[in-house]
Amino acid sequence: MDRYLDEQVLALGEKLTQRLVALASFPTVSGKEYDAQQYICEQLKALQCDQIDVWDPDIESMRGHEAFVSSRNDFAGSPNVVGTWKGSGGGRSLIVNAHIDVVPPGDESEWTVPPFAGTVRNGRIFGRGVSDMKCAHAALLTCVEALHKAGRRLRGDLIFQSVIEEETGGAGTLSCALRGYQADGALIPEPVHMALCPAQQGVLYFRVHVTGKAGHGGERYLGVSAIEKAAFVLEALGELERRRGEEWNHPLYREVPIPFTINVGTIQGGAWPSMVPEHVAFEGRMGVAPGETLQQARCSMEDFLAGLEERDPWFREHPPQVEWLPNRLYSAQIPEDHPLVDTAKAAFAQVMQWQPQMAGTAFGTDASVLTNFAGTPTLVFGPGSVAHCADESIAVDTLLDYTRVMAQLIADWCGSD
Amino acid sequence: MDRYLDEQVLALGEKLTQRLVALASFPTVSGKEYDAQQYICEQLKALQCDQIDVWDPDIESMRGHEAFVSSRNDFAGSPNVVGTWKGSGGGRSLIVNAHIDVVPPGDESEWTVPPFAGTVRNGRIFGRGVSDMKCAHAALLTCVEALHKAGRRLRGDLIFQSVIEEETGGAGTLSCALRGYQADGALIPEPVHMALCPAQQGVLYFRVHVTGKAGHGGERYLGVSAIEKAAFVLEALGELERRRGEEWNHPLYREVPIPFTINVGTIQGGAWPSMVPEHVAFEGRMGVAPGETLQQARCSMEDFLAGLEERDPWFREHPPQVEWLPNRLYSAQIPEDHPLVDTAKAAFAQVMQWQPQMAGTAFGTDASVLTNFAGTPTLVFGPGSVAHCADESIAVDTLLDYTRVMAQLIADWCGSD
Repeated sequence: MDRYLDEQVLALGEKLTQRLVALASFPTVSGKEYDAQQYICEQLKALQCDQIDVWDPDIESMRGHEAFVSSRNDFAGSPNVVGTWKGSGGGRSLIVNAHIDVVPPGDESEWTVPPFAGTVRNGRIFGRGVSDMKCAHAALLTCVEALHKAGRRLRGDLIFQSVIEEETGGAGTLSCALRGYQADGALIPEPVHMALCPAQQGVLYFRVHVTGKAGHGGERYLGVSAIEKAAFVLEALGELERRRGEEWNHPLYREVPIPFTINVGTIQGGAWPSMVPEHVAFEGRMGVAPGETLQQARCSMEDFLAGLEERDPWFREHPPQVEWLPNRLYSAQIPEDHPLVDTAKAAFAQVMQWQPQMAGTAFGTDASVLTNFAGTPTLVFGPGSVAHCADESIAVDTLLDYTRVMAQLIADWCGSD
Repeated sequence: MDRYLDEQVLALGEKLTQRLVALASFPTVSGKEYDAQQYICEQLKALQCDQIDVWDPDIESMRGHEAFVSSRNDFAGSPNVVGTWKGSGGGRSLIVNAHIDVVPPGDESEWTVPPFAGTVRNGRIFGRGVSDMKCAHAALLTCVEALHKAGRRLRGDLIFQSVIEEETGGAGTLSCALRGYQADGALIPEPVHMALCPAQQGVLYFRVHVTGKAGHGGERYLGVSAIEKAAFVLEALGELERRRGEEWNHPLYREVPIPFTINVGTIQGGAWPSMVPEHVAFEGRMGVAPGETLQQARCSMEDFLAGLEERDPWFREHPPQVEWLPNRLYSAQIPEDHPLVDTAKAAFAQVMQWQPQMAGTAFGTDASVLTNFAGTPTLVFGPGSVAHCADESIAVDTLLDYTRVMAQLIADWCGSD
């Protein structure tokens, strides 16, 4: 371990917290990223970044791409920011990709702190996005500052991508890829509890329509309840979920209770309390295994739903219809013994004094673009744990540990003089 | 049987159809009853009605009444019409209660005819409300015309109530009751397939809230799906439904597959496909057995839901919450050997040459007001069968048969000279 570098990181602990508090105060939901990205630019300038690239992604040039997903009409006023510290030569380049956008705070009455205030309390920093994933911005900037203070000059390029639109489909990272950014490796600090994740599951979103037969509720036995039929389909989907977990028996998901979940998140159906409901639709997400194509995953559900007619003749004439929603993310993976993984493992073990947990992600990430479409082997590794919920937060100590590991990882991967 | 009277009804068959066609052309959804009630008034005048009482029900005077239900602010422009043919004396009085309001036509693309045109095709009259229950208006008016043509003068009063708001809670009939109308018996021609129904079930409407624990869908095993918990509650309610059918082992419902249904008609829950849903609400109707109070019925569901904690400990901390919706109708019944039932049975058998089916209704009716709050023993008996759906219709022959029975019934019950 580079102890001197580590000391510099430790000395910047207070500043690390301040950076995250500052970032957490920007309410960067989709479309509101501008001010936070300005803050990032100022930080990059202060840290002698060699090249600062700021642009509003051009939606039209991305529309034809197979990884493009967005419901926005344009990204005007929502810039990507990429800062590059040029290496002195002879080292490996590294992308650190962190999204600046956050999901909405939801019901603010469930928060015990304001969601966009960056409150520090009992050793934790609270706010929407502190875990997912502005902690990454704070950590990377602090790593660079520590490298400077330690007098380390990297050999390979360090490319910091502060991107938009991760939470809504990944168009920010796709725009980076199409702009030509690639590297020998990439790190995405999504909230994975400090695990190293060489594999990321993909995700498909679906809506299933179930049909019944309307009728008066007082004689409901003359109708067919779409709610009852939907309950049957929901129960059956648990079986598909189990089957898919066994089929894609992935080593990094062996410890996970349900490796590739089929989560039904919404349901809506029926028109009147006193009518037998004629239609129910439910929406959900399905995990796509690393190594599985989106099309394979779609077919597995379509085939399964078609097969339900053998269990209930009603479905023969009224099969559940699956509609695939626009959002989806490819799965991605790099070998478990990829040099980037080895470097990260070593850096982790040196700093933390124990071996990191190896895992696959429970969600899709921008790694699906970097690994699959930007020729950049990507490792997901981040300190966050609590995300997308009220009182999102991160422990100050965990953030500092992570930053210490990240500094070693950068120095080791890129090489330093 | 009064054969001469029957011949007069048969001779008026064409006019009977014309009356229903005319009535079906008025789109009398709640708030749009005026023109149809004017038509009724004209018919009453043409039929030498002794007293025609027309008034907009006063909502304020009803609000405190335990049977009052309405979501309207007033009934201005929505008159009740009551026509009374005074009896010559010595007979029993009869109310014929028929509602002029209809439920909305729903998705008109599912109709093969315009819903408010009164189309006659293949021996059936089509239109929203022809079965439920403008056929009753046409039948009653035709009965009176036939009685006149046959030279019959009734001994008891015949009171024809053409009321509003049956489909939305019964405020029209309640207003008649509070205005002082009552009689020795009443007939409500709801669509019961020509069965005689001395018993009517009541109905309660409920909304049940089921709570889960939110979380990321990719790690759904860390959350608790409110949709899964709701499916459990829905399944369990089937058991309550069976239990209630057995408990209120009512003779008139013995042939019914599910005597007092618990029909769940709507469901809604969850916020995002990729979140474990935290809340689901479903709405439904619960049949109230004749002889059962609304409070008894409410308690039976509340107790049942509270007991679910023994099957799933989740419900101990997060019990399903039932909310009772404003609409409800009392159950009602008269003895199976009530003289009105006997009279109806005899009239039916004489005209149809077979014994009528005896039954309890599968739904609530305005009998809940007449029997319980207007001191008027009420029998539900009507010719309709297909109601509240696209292509609502009634067979011309069935309507004529019904009118023939009704004429005999009126003459026998009221007595005639």
